[in-house]
Amino acid sequence: MEKCTVVFNPSKKSISVKKGANLLEVARKAGIFVDAPCGGRGHCGKCRVKVESGSHRMEFSPLLTEEDIKKGIRLACLTFVEGDMVVEIEEAKNVEDILVEDVKPGDEKSERIKNASRLLEKEGIVKDSGVFIINLELPKPSLDDNVADFERLKRELKIRHNIENVTCSLGVLKSLPKVLRQEDFKIIATLLKSEGVYELLKVEGRENKGAYGICTDVGTTTVAANLVDLSTGEIIASATSGNLQMQYGADIISRIIYASSQEGLEKLRVSIVEGTINRLIKELIKKAKISKEDIVAGVFAGNTTMTHLLLGVDPSYIRLEPYIPVFRECPQIKAKDTGIDINPEANITVLPNVASYVGGDIVSGVLASGLWAEDKNTLFLDLGTNGEIVFGNKDFMLTCACSAGPAFEGGEISCGMRAMPGAIDEVAIDRKTLEPKINVLGDIKPKGICGSGLIDLIAEMFLSGIIDSKGKISGEIKNDRIRYDENLDVMEYVVVWGRESYDGRDITINEIDIDNLLRAKGAVFSGLSVLLKTAGLSVYNLDKIIIAGGIGRNLHIKNAKIIGLLPDIDEKKFNYMGNASLIGAYLCLVYEKAREKAREIADSMTYIELSTYPSYMDEFVSACFLPHTDRSLFPSVISLIK
Amino acid sequence: MEKCTVVFNPSKKSISVKKGANLLEVARKAGIFVDAPCGGRGHCGKCRVKVESGSHRMEFSPLLTEEDIKKGIRLACLTFVEGDMVVEIEEAKNVEDILVEDVKPGDEKSERIKNASRLLEKEGIVKDSGVFIINLELPKPSLDDNVADFERLKRELKIRHNIENVTCSLGVLKSLPKVLRQEDFKIIATLLKSEGVYELLKVEGRENKGAYGICTDVGTTTVAANLVDLSTGEIIASATSGNLQMQYGADIISRIIYASSQEGLEKLRVSIVEGTINRLIKELIKKAKISKEDIVAGVFAGNTTMTHLLLGVDPSYIRLEPYIPVFRECPQIKAKDTGIDINPEANITVLPNVASYVGGDIVSGVLASGLWAEDKNTLFLDLGTNGEIVFGNKDFMLTCACSAGPAFEGGEISCGMRAMPGAIDEVAIDRKTLEPKINVLGDIKPKGICGSGLIDLIAEMFLSGIIDSKGKISGEIKNDRIRYDENLDVMEYVVVWGRESYDGRDITINEIDIDNLLRAKGAVFSGLSVLLKTAGLSVYNLDKIIIAGGIGRNLHIKNAKIIGLLPDIDEKKFNYMGNASLIGAYLCLVYEKAREKAREIADSMTYIELSTYPSYMDEFVSACFLPHTDRSLFPSVISLIK
Repeated sequence: MEKCTVVFNPSKKSISVKKGANLLEVARKAGIFVDAPCGGRGHCGKCRVKVESGSHRMEFSPLLTEEDIKKGIRLACLTFVEGDMVVEIEEAKNVEDILVEDVKPGDEKSERIKNASRLLEKEGIVKDSGVFIINLELPKPSLDDNVADFERLKRELKIRHNIENVTCSLGVLKSLPKVLRQEDFKIIATLLKSEGVYELLKVEGRENKGAYGICTDVGTTTVAANLVDLSTGEIIASATSGNLQMQYGADIISRIIYASSQEGLEKLRVSIVEGTINRLIKELIKKAKISKEDIVAGVFAGNTTMTHLLLGVDPSYIRLEPYIPVFRECPQIKAKDTGIDINPEANITVLPNVASYVGGDIVSGVLASGLWAEDKNTLFLDLGTNGEIVFGNKDFMLTCACSAGPAFEGGEISCGMRAMPGAIDEVAIDRKTLEPKINVLGDIKPKGICGSGLIDLIAEMFLSGIIDSKGKISGEIKNDRIRYDENLDVMEYVVVWGRESYDGRDITINEIDIDNLLRAKGAVFSGLSVLLKTAGLSVYNLDKIIIAGGIGRNLHIKNAKIIGLLPDIDEKKFNYMGNASLIGAYLCLVYEKAREKAREIADSMTYIELSTYPSYMDEFVSACFLPHTDRSLFPSVISLIK
Repeated sequence: MEKCTVVFNPSKKSISVKKGANLLEVARKAGIFVDAPCGGRGHCGKCRVKVESGSHRMEFSPLLTEEDIKKGIRLACLTFVEGDMVVEIEEAKNVEDILVEDVKPGDEKSERIKNASRLLEKEGIVKDSGVFIINLELPKPSLDDNVADFERLKRELKIRHNIENVTCSLGVLKSLPKVLRQEDFKIIATLLKSEGVYELLKVEGRENKGAYGICTDVGTTTVAANLVDLSTGEIIASATSGNLQMQYGADIISRIIYASSQEGLEKLRVSIVEGTINRLIKELIKKAKISKEDIVAGVFAGNTTMTHLLLGVDPSYIRLEPYIPVFRECPQIKAKDTGIDINPEANITVLPNVASYVGGDIVSGVLASGLWAEDKNTLFLDLGTNGEIVFGNKDFMLTCACSAGPAFEGGEISCGMRAMPGAIDEVAIDRKTLEPKINVLGDIKPKGICGSGLIDLIAEMFLSGIIDSKGKISGEIKNDRIRYDENLDVMEYVVVWGRESYDGRDITINEIDIDNLLRAKGAVFSGLSVLLKTAGLSVYNLDKIIIAGGIGRNLHIKNAKIIGLLPDIDEKKFNYMGNASLIGAYLCLVYEKAREKAREIADSMTYIELSTYPSYMDEFVSACFLPHTDRSLFPSVISLIK
């Protein structure tokens, strides 16, 4: 078998592979992150690399221009190694970057958490994480008092704190003789109470750092985590990162397919646990100046596929009719069972799923939103990588999943990206000159467009007459920014010229992108229509709409209504909640009883399977127009375009 | 650093080591078992090796004759590598050998277990291991019944068997989707009920092999295990092996000291778990034709130090005043936490200790003996590597540990060995010719003498006048078998001439050996005297004596009385129970409620610390004579020697 050496720049990582190997696979093997939202099927054009030297074979892609090819640009997924190569990997769009933030009292995130906590307490749930931190001074052993170390500790817990039924792991038991004697029998014990049993999580000396918990929203695209001081409920630090599973596909279906490949399941598990979550934890404990053993509880909210992959459980049957997950509610497990790098004895709570496509993140979000205790007819809309919708109030809850795909997080859109520094998050277009006015996150040149920017862009292109109600770009307008892409055989609009962009390439949106966005918004609107119909109601019966998810706080409701993503009702009825799933996970960390409430919520939701719902396809097709084929649903929008 | 290569024959294992390395350590590193009861301190003379070639340095030992040295015989612990060497390891006395046996209904072992079970049931404890094996045919998933795999299984357990509160490990959860579909949703679930929660231990198809448990007596010298079918309580196979920790010292104290050395604790843990217990398990599952996942429960009884080492818990403070173990009662743990190679989710029960030198093996033995339910004044005597004694009845229990050492299991006796094939287990000496008549275990030439043989030998030498009441060999007797050992400067008696022995060397007993045995029996007798005195009673108040432990079933009570090991009372009051600890462990495996009873027994025993008991030293010194300085205690023995 002939072997070739491939060197990747700028990291200079080198790997020896079989001749004929796929360059995307080679990069993954070398531990290099290459963005590949389509999972390496040649559709998305994001796995661009530059071949500096070396023999290789490449399959044709319309996503590369002749100029690209001359420069040595290739799509890694369509390139095969034929000899020793040197390859430059273009900068992946910050997937690996971790953003660590303080959460200060009074800021937006902090206020949302405070509100959600207040709501929970109003419903009678008391703040209690189940974790106890106890100072103990044990009597020193003597010939007359020769009780064993563990029994000595238990005796004191009983006498001083009336705590009985104490257990511990072998790891903690092993640590006892040394720490007791080193600390002269003056120690701090951290215990977790659960169903009447107190588990000793750690025993330390007076230099004890306290007990912390981590709550995490495991999103398909973005993972966000808060480090929480369990004795106060205070958020010490917050961090987000891209989900490193993205290298195996941007959407859930690509990942499920990849999980069935050789070692695919394990690679996906490692990507999320070691590649993403443990890296976040590392940053958080660095910031908080604690050690990983100090994190004694973890709560994880994710969609059904993410929770399966997080635990290394095969998600294959989620994708195949009749769409069966392995578990709805994960049994109680320990950190050491999962590879999550906190105190090995920490309990890991994975919030319960509802069905194959409505997961624990939605349950968590609904918990945080207070929908379950609401009198009003409330719509909860999670616009993340998919689109999940819950409609109801304290008496009933209906839910469905729309296959919106990752478009609102910038996935499968040629110029799309997450809401990170460099993302265009707001766009306005001059009605006459058709020149765009943009806002860019962070103090850098634009790299791409995130969800809220894409919604603005489509709405503004529609209002400016650049696109029609089918999303087609008018060929009749004479403007530099509107041009024909020969390779892809579609029209496109230039949002940012290369000279003003981060990497020197034009940032454009083409008809394929627009089509993807229209199908995404159509999936959401038709989903919510079906839920309302199932309840015998219409959009006019909506008292409240809660918007959550990765779409970003700069979402313009007005524009979302213009493109027909959101119902055309009074803007005052809309609430933006941000990452509701993360807030719910926080609640479950700090309020032990909230976990029970989350289980109740998951149990009481009625799941509507859209793919088998009789009129769903008609609803969907109608909703893929701008704003909708039934214009009577969007009176205020129609008044704007007339 | 100069490196030398040492090759060991006959295995031809080769290892590269630093010049100057100790040969015993080198052999251990090479994974070769060398018997070293004294822990490598040059005292016992058991680590004999033959240097075939190579430069080395050796320290003087009186345990080697000039002839030995000429032949290249060395003590490994006193030999240091100076160049490349070839070394032949003399056969270790079967420490590694595993003896696997059937336990057939009606045989002695089986009857003892039946009696102990009957006794338990008489006291109201119902046979119930807590393990359930359940056949299930799940309805296949459909669009109308799209419940998740785990919830589907739980639903059926609830409907068909009214089983709720079901949990499982991540491992079992991961196995679900495949096994359910492979087996067409017809499965067999094995569950363990514990405190109201049912834990799913395995899910299999119809080829299910059942559910088994393993009960083990972890002795300092010998480890014995039974494989038990949990649905019937039947013992499928039984196996014993030497405890491979013996290479680090025969007695508990040597092992505790070794545990404090660099990585010593881990080496000892690996020796018992991987080297001994897992090897026994491998043989047992081979014999039973099951897989290790089928063993879903484990019960382990051992002395306090052994239970610490089994779990990798530091035993150091057991040896140091005020003699504090780390735990008396080990919390509930899983097989996967311990390295014991059975179903990783199997619960491991370690029977509770009483004090530093009275462990779970004694609690287990007392449970099996029925002493705790007895009206009569009963003495329970465990003659294993130490000597532990319990005295009492259903109203009270006193216990103590005698530092008898491993003499009764053949340890620290030059000709001593365990009761294995090749062991002399009975000896009679002709009063005139002083010729011995021996019985050898198994159909091979004698290799050494085990406990019961040593007791016979001392009694017969005493009755024949070869030794006096101090254990000194008379220099006045003219007989070939009685001779002077110049090296050791002591007299010795030849039991077997080299021409008739297994390895061609004379099997002898010398005055040092006799002294060790007298101190061992003195420790036991003085211990039981103190217990009786503490209760305000004497040997004449004893209604029943139960003898347990490794001393072997061929123990002659008469001879044990002659040497003053056992009280001089009616022979009918003695019962021999064999490995009572293993029987108790069996009970705790098959009767879940017996574990609770064991905890009660451990809690209700009063431990008497002999080392601080006022008159103990006087008692001990008096008891080191043959039979005792207080001859009135042994009327029948005195009548024999007059």
